Amino acid sequence: MIPGADSAITRDGKALILAYDHGLEHGPVDFEPVPETTDPSTVFDVATHDAVTAIAVQKGVAEAYYPSYEDDVPLLAKLNGTSNLWMGEPDSSVNWSVDYAAELGADAIGFTVYGGSNHEVEMFEEFRDAQENAREHDMGVVMWSYPRGQGLKDDTSPDTIAYASRLGLELGADIAKVKYPGSADAMSWAVDSAGNMKVVMSGGSKTSDEAFLSTVREAMDAGADGLAVGRNVFQRQNPEAILDGLEAVIFDDASVEEALATTGGLEASD
Amino acid sequence: MIPGADSAITRDGKALILAYDHGLEHGPVDFEPVPETTDPSTVFDVATHDAVTAIAVQKGVAEAYYPSYEDDVPLLAKLNGTSNLWMGEPDSSVNWSVDYAAELGADAIGFTVYGGSNHEVEMFEEFRDAQENAREHDMGVVMWSYPRGQGLKDDTSPDTIAYASRLGLELGADIAKVKYPGSADAMSWAVDSAGNMKVVMSGGSKTSDEAFLSTVREAMDAGADGLAVGRNVFQRQNPEAILDGLEAVIFDDASVEEALATTGGLEASD
Amino acid sequence: MIPGADSAITRDGKALILAYDHGLEHGPVDFEPVPETTDPSTVFDVATHDAVTAIAVQKGVAEAYYPSYEDDVPLLAKLNGTSNLWMGEPDSSVNWSVDYAAELGADAIGFTVYGGSNHEVEMFEEFRDAQENAREHDMGVVMWSYPRGQGLKDDTSPDTIAYASRLGLELGADIAKVKYPGSADAMSWAVDSAGNMKVVMSGGSKTSDEAFLSTVREAMDAGADGLAVGRNVFQRQNPEAILDGLEAVIFDDASVEEALATTGGLEASD
Amino acid sequence: MIPGADSAITRDGKALILAYDHGLEHGPVDFEPVPETTDPSTVFDVATHDAVTAIAVQKGVAEAYYPSYEDDVPLLAKLNGTSNLWMGEPDSSVNWSVDYAAELGADAIGFTVYGGSNHEVEMFEEFRDAQENAREHDMGVVMWSYPRGQGLKDDTSPDTIAYASRLGLELGADIAKVKYPGSADAMSWAVDSAGNMKVVMSGGSKTSDEAFLSTVREAMDAGADGLAVGRNVFQRQNPEAILDGLEAVIFDDASVEEALATTGGLEASD
Amino acid sequence: MIPGADSAITRDGKALILAYDHGLEHGPVDFEPVPETTDPSTVFDVATHDAVTAIAVQKGVAEAYYPSYEDDVPLLAKLNGTSNLWMGEPDSSVNWSVDYAAELGADAIGFTVYGGSNHEVEMFEEFRDAQENAREHDMGVVMWSYPRGQGLKDDTSPDTIAYASRLGLELGADIAKVKYPGSADAMSWAVDSAGNMKVVMSGGSKTSDEAFLSTVREAMDAGADGLAVGRNVFQRQNPEAILDGLEAVIFDDASVEEALATTGGLEASD
Repeated sequence: MIPGADSAITRDGKALILAYDHGLEHGPVDFEPVPETTDPSTVFDVATHDAVTAIAVQKGVAEAYYPSYEDDVPLLAKLNGTSNLWMGEPDSSVNWSVDYAAELGADAIGFTVYGGSNHEVEMFEEFRDAQENAREHDMGVVMWSYPRGQGLKDDTSPDTIAYASRLGLELGADIAKVKYPGSADAMSWAVDSAGNMKVVMSGGSKTSDEAFLSTVREAMDAGADGLAVGRNVFQRQNPEAILDGLEAVIFDDASVEEALATTGGLEASD
Repeated sequence: MIPGADSAITRDGKALILAYDHGLEHGPVDFEPVPETTDPSTVFDVATHDAVTAIAVQKGVAEAYYPSYEDDVPLLAKLNGTSNLWMGEPDSSVNWSVDYAAELGADAIGFTVYGGSNHEVEMFEEFRDAQENAREHDMGVVMWSYPRGQGLKDDTSPDTIAYASRLGLELGADIAKVKYPGSADAMSWAVDSAGNMKVVMSGGSKTSDEAFLSTVREAMDAGADGLAVGRNVFQRQNPEAILDGLEAVIFDDASVEEALATTGGLEASD
Repeated sequence: MIPGADSAITRDGKALILAYDHGLEHGPVDFEPVPETTDPSTVFDVATHDAVTAIAVQKGVAEAYYPSYEDDVPLLAKLNGTSNLWMGEPDSSVNWSVDYAAELGADAIGFTVYGGSNHEVEMFEEFRDAQENAREHDMGVVMWSYPRGQGLKDDTSPDTIAYASRLGLELGADIAKVKYPGSADAMSWAVDSAGNMKVVMSGGSKTSDEAFLSTVREAMDAGADGLAVGRNVFQRQNPEAILDGLEAVIFDDASVEEALATTGGLEASD
Repeated sequence: MIPGADSAITRDGKALILAYDHGLEHGPVDFEPVPETTDPSTVFDVATHDAVTAIAVQKGVAEAYYPSYEDDVPLLAKLNGTSNLWMGEPDSSVNWSVDYAAELGADAIGFTVYGGSNHEVEMFEEFRDAQENAREHDMGVVMWSYPRGQGLKDDTSPDTIAYASRLGLELGADIAKVKYPGSADAMSWAVDSAGNMKVVMSGGSKTSDEAFLSTVREAMDAGADGLAVGRNVFQRQNPEAILDGLEAVIFDDASVEEALATTGGLEASD
Repeated sequence: MIPGADSAITRDGKALILAYDHGLEHGPVDFEPVPETTDPSTVFDVATHDAVTAIAVQKGVAEAYYPSYEDDVPLLAKLNGTSNLWMGEPDSSVNWSVDYAAELGADAIGFTVYGGSNHEVEMFEEFRDAQENAREHDMGVVMWSYPRGQGLKDDTSPDTIAYASRLGLELGADIAKVKYPGSADAMSWAVDSAGNMKVVMSGGSKTSDEAFLSTVREAMDAGADGLAVGRNVFQRQNPEAILDGLEAVIFDDASVEEALATTGGLEASD
């Protein structure tokens, strides 16, 4: 963590990252709830919402679409990722070099690390290379810190998530993206474990507006610095509405009720 | 995908790639139906047909024969490939460096990626290196996107092929070559999943003129941007005839009947 | 071992290294006895005690906190380390390059080597690279020499620890950090086996003030050149007190009784 | 294959390569039939025979002996090779860099590739590096193309040998050295499969003069471009005699009877 | 083998290498017979004996002690080595780069190669890098050629040792260090198999003065070019005496009786 290194992808020290790498990680099936989201333009348009502080995509999507949006939203270059066609011990391919990410205008890099996997050693070392190279480009570093693997019993337990955010601090991330550990106390422990590094909650699979905003509210109250979200935004018919609600919660300290009022509750019955 | 990066190997935005790397992938047995095709000159001559927008060969064949054809047909340097003497989990050796491909006059590179293989992580990373190096040379990038491996149940199902073309987009190809998924709807899904990246159908093993042209017609109607074909051309006694037919279907929007008229139906009984 | 190479992290030829990489190696649970130690600032403050000749941390913690302490305590850059989420044959990821450690102001590097592990060959070679690179930067080299692995019956037996310190000498460390082998004689053998390279005792898990100071006294009497300690300092309510005691034992040749007098015995009942 | 790239190790487009890397591949036992051949000078002397177009040796033998023969015979630097003390799946260590081979005066490189081995992917990639590096030095490239490995049923069947020579063409060799597939027809298929790349027959273990010359005659008649031979020359009491015979068959289009007349039949009863 | 490349570590074409890397290979237990040898100074002092043509040590020992002896004895940098805490298939870690060995004043490099091990391919390639790099520094190359591994039945049989010395020649060593194969005839075969490369006998574990000198005499009579010895020198109470004897045998062609007279027989009863 270098103070200020994440400034290009945060606002008032908080982050709302729109993640759109599901085409690689899960395949096109993730776009079926809202078929138009198969077209990256649709989601890039969503990312121009004021609440969004960065969009996270893989290299090919950035090459093809980011030139049209580079004035509208910061780019978080998601460097690694795998398909779910492959089902081995958690690992992730490095699909994008830091130098080329910088050339394409990225403001920060994103990197998945599966602590506890049999590939932990290799992934830590790949993260090292990416992190140090990002420093040379003055780019921020976001770690998707997801402990996972055959040796791990519970990948969302409080101690696992506290460990996950600590890994981000120890290894040199500016922001760690972690799963919500199920309670405000556990989230608070994860935030404390991160020292002065930022922690953002991972959005996960789609839930109702109220459930989702409540969890985000809880995470923020526990000290989180924002959210990285994909399906809970782009799998909704009205992604702008939920972004309005998230903006209220994350940046304006709104309650869930206040935030829901901004969304109109359009998605609650999904 | 970088807009225009494939322009050297497309015409009017469409591609008809003549692939001739079977000597490596399958061995000389693939030349037995038309023994003269053992001699690469024969197939290079075929590739001078107006319909062909590029010929895809391995390094050694390019070294030995391309100098005589460099004014007649663009070169798609197929960088990786394996013999079928080896029968392990799908993998492919990188037999040609991008720099040397550029030196030999290649206009674009071709690269096989077996998503879902136990070697997926390694292949994605090899693709990354090749793709980024190709960008430095302003060469287009074609991904042979063939999900395959012990964890994969069906390598031509609609969702597999949609995922295959999406992998091309996510990882930075300009064109993805995928197998025909069996129906126009499935092909359409694969094309949509590719965003603004081009998708070409893979020709596969030899069928009758009518069957073959019908499938190509279906694929084009579903939004495909062309074809990459080997055996369905060079295993025919009269490859020029089928190329006339393919040109009609791909570039002139001809019906199967119109196209068959150009071929004279010479091969239908094979 | 190059004479004088460790001068930046020793005083009068002796070392008291405060190690704080437990957040990576063990996770946040190691901070539970004194929750404030979750915050690296707390431990960096402790490290400003006169007795401490260097603080050993991982890259991310150095990036985030060392700039505020660089005038107060030398930095020992702990280059490698793993989480205990991963439970394979002992190995350690190289998380920090020597060049970047130098750029962040490190005075020396720290490197774990698990002699006897199935990864011994790989770890020796990683150590080689780090050690030779450190020489180019005139940085000292501390080896955490911990024989361990499926082939090793007893990792603290006298011959194992003598071998551990010898590995440090043979491979080019300036200081080897080894576990206490259980007796003054065994420690003496380990010190002798190190030739003119320094040997420091590893602090291990927390014990009472008296037990801990007695062991350190024994080690010093056996010829050790100091101590590398983490939990036995920062897991105490009054870390300054034990540092007073350690300073007396290590630098002022005090007896255990004299040293205990400086600590006030505050932790003895823990 | 680059036209003319092999000119330094061929004469009138034909090659007679004397291979002498048996000390590595088989050990000193291969020298027992003619003990003086243990001394490389003996075999280098044989290689000064007019018929020999190149001598193929490993690096150390070239370092020690080639300086005395560099005006007498071209050097084919055999870059890889393994001992038969090791009995795993076919693989071969790269023992000599192309740059250093060039520095020692090599005119071409030789490289073994075991297509079909579990190490095929790795060997193809090592061949790529060597081949492309050789191009930078304008050195010819000879592939010892020996399909072999647990997945291969018959390593001298016609289709295996046709595939073997095709691998040479596809991957960029100038000459492929293949085993004799047992019949003129099969050899002819192998030669055709090589396109305009040269194919030389591998000499194999020692046979009688007549049997050996007959096979070479058959191979030449089938279109082969020469021979690479070791034991069938240096395990004879009178290697010059058999070289006279081979010269007649390979370069002067002699019949076996004519060729035998030049050898004097000295070895026929061995 | 490059003529003269070993001149810095031979005298009159013969070598007596004092090896002292046992602290790494076997651990401090090898110093127990003469505890003072735990201190490298003691053995470096021994190495100043006129008979010794080079001392072979690992990097760390060279860093710490060689500066005081660089005017007295040539340095043979033993680049690789492993602990015996690790018990896998024979392998050896490369602990010292050639460049840094040159910087520390080494006159030649030493490198262990376990032919026949499952790691043979990897070790041959590591040897290649070291050997070619040594050539750039005009340093001699000594191969510790020790065939060993699960596939090897007898690692000191005549054919194994002949193969061992041949590997040195083929791969580019200037001197091969091999175990004594049990008879003068077998040693003679090993020497012949080495061509014009030098062969030195490996000293092995400690025996009586007479037995040891007799074996060395036998080896020299069989054509060996000297000895590389550790325990048979430094595990004696009077290492200078046995060095007097070895000097007589190796350099002055003395008989065992003449040589024993110089040692005074002090160790015969050990």
